[in-house]
Amino acid sequence: MNVLIVYAHPQPRSLNGALRDFAVRRLEAAGHRVQVSDLYAMQWKATLDEHDAPERDPREPFHASLDSKRAFAEGTQSADIAREQEKLRWADTVIFQFPMWWFSMPAIMKGWFDRVYAYGFAYGVGEHSDTHWGDRYGEGSMSGKRAMLVVTTGGWDSHYSARGINGPIDDLLFPIQHGMLFYPGFDVLPPVVVHRTGKVDAARWDAITHTLGGRLDTLATTAPIPYRRQNFGAYDIPALTLKDDVSPGQTGFAAHLA
Amino acid sequence: MNVLIVYAHPQPRSLNGALRDFAVRRLEAAGHRVQVSDLYAMQWKATLDEHDAPERDPREPFHASLDSKRAFAEGTQSADIAREQEKLRWADTVIFQFPMWWFSMPAIMKGWFDRVYAYGFAYGVGEHSDTHWGDRYGEGSMSGKRAMLVVTTGGWDSHYSARGINGPIDDLLFPIQHGMLFYPGFDVLPPVVVHRTGKVDAARWDAITHTLGGRLDTLATTAPIPYRRQNFGAYDIPALTLKDDVSPGQTGFAAHLA
Repeated sequence: MNVLIVYAHPQPRSLNGALRDFAVRRLEAAGHRVQVSDLYAMQWKATLDEHDAPERDPREPFHASLDSKRAFAEGTQSADIAREQEKLRWADTVIFQFPMWWFSMPAIMKGWFDRVYAYGFAYGVGEHSDTHWGDRYGEGSMSGKRAMLVVTTGGWDSHYSARGINGPIDDLLFPIQHGMLFYPGFDVLPPVVVHRTGKVDAARWDAITHTLGGRLDTLATTAPIPYRRQNFGAYDIPALTLKDDVSPGQTGFAAHLA
Repeated sequence: MNVLIVYAHPQPRSLNGALRDFAVRRLEAAGHRVQVSDLYAMQWKATLDEHDAPERDPREPFHASLDSKRAFAEGTQSADIAREQEKLRWADTVIFQFPMWWFSMPAIMKGWFDRVYAYGFAYGVGEHSDTHWGDRYGEGSMSGKRAMLVVTTGGWDSHYSARGINGPIDDLLFPIQHGMLFYPGFDVLPPVVVHRTGKVDAARWDAITHTLGGRLDTLATTAPIPYRRQNFGAYDIPALTLKDDVSPGQTGFAAHLA
């Protein structure tokens, strides 16, 4: 299959760089085609602004979503955005690899989502009415594709556990996995998380690459996280709240798992 | 008091721009001193990279945290970073205002945290050992200061409610409020969240500014979110998990509220 790796780390000679190289080799050895969007190497422009719609009318005030919509529809987006969208169309599976900085992705990758996820491409897709709130959360342009996070943290596993001080890793990743990946239609595979990156000796490297290798070998068959789909009966529309008989009495992120 | 507003929106002629102007006027009318870091107007550099430590040894591989530590300690950080840190030292209260994009802040503001939050300034503060895991989560350089988010969303209140499809707003903001603000020591006030920004008529503007105005008038007295402090008995160290008798049986973000 076709695998796109969107990768954000400022230093190739790093654990992240080594894991990225490992992943490319492993996937290619298995016969997959691989492209890497190495955001630091590409000097990816992180900030969404009026230059992303270069043919817009400069006399009008810039509007982030409406200018994105028009530029996407008319084929006049800035070239770097269009190239990344083309890679997404090409890909069967997309891996997002990054070190966790301040409990989220580095700004350069956030800017990849802000800019590549155009109106009409990743949001504003499908009918929007009081009975159908867009093709999203389980439907959309990325439908049929798979996505997976590969995340490193300096902290320990326990710090990210169910009662760990940082909050559970699954909850910290929910805004990304559910809000950025499931939203435009990806099937989201459970993440590969590597903790305590300051202490990686040969034995840990072997263990980490054993785990990552196994996950790369099973990209096509691993069961995705069972997020509930928006338009298939679990939610009242347009309130978009869970129906009373779905996860009854439950609140919070976990209620959106089937 | 001294109030810093860190603001990220690409268009001054917008609801966010109007709310920012409203806040500045309201605070100044009450006798406060106000500075605004308007990240788009400043063309803030979003991406943390080797240029942030301009006097580093270019023969050595760039290391995001160690180069940050050295540049901060030696006073050789890039000037834009040092200026923002000085504003933080000056401020008694910091307001972060942004439109929610993909369930987080725009990349340009994420890059403000990635870069301004240097090692030794916002993390890596205090003793780090198996009995004291740094001055953080309730202690640190921002101790004694207050912070508050002002966030706009296009979606409806119900979409962000306890059983709403996007996840509860408090949980979506936890990585920011707890992980970026409480972490270096801020007392974090409950956020001001404005939903459904596509439909703001005169009556809603009045209601929104009434709420925001009230919150600005009470910045000094509003009770902060009662996050549990790391080093005052609630957590086992170094595992940094809640002790069994603290929020017994509870998991997830809410367990970290006293």
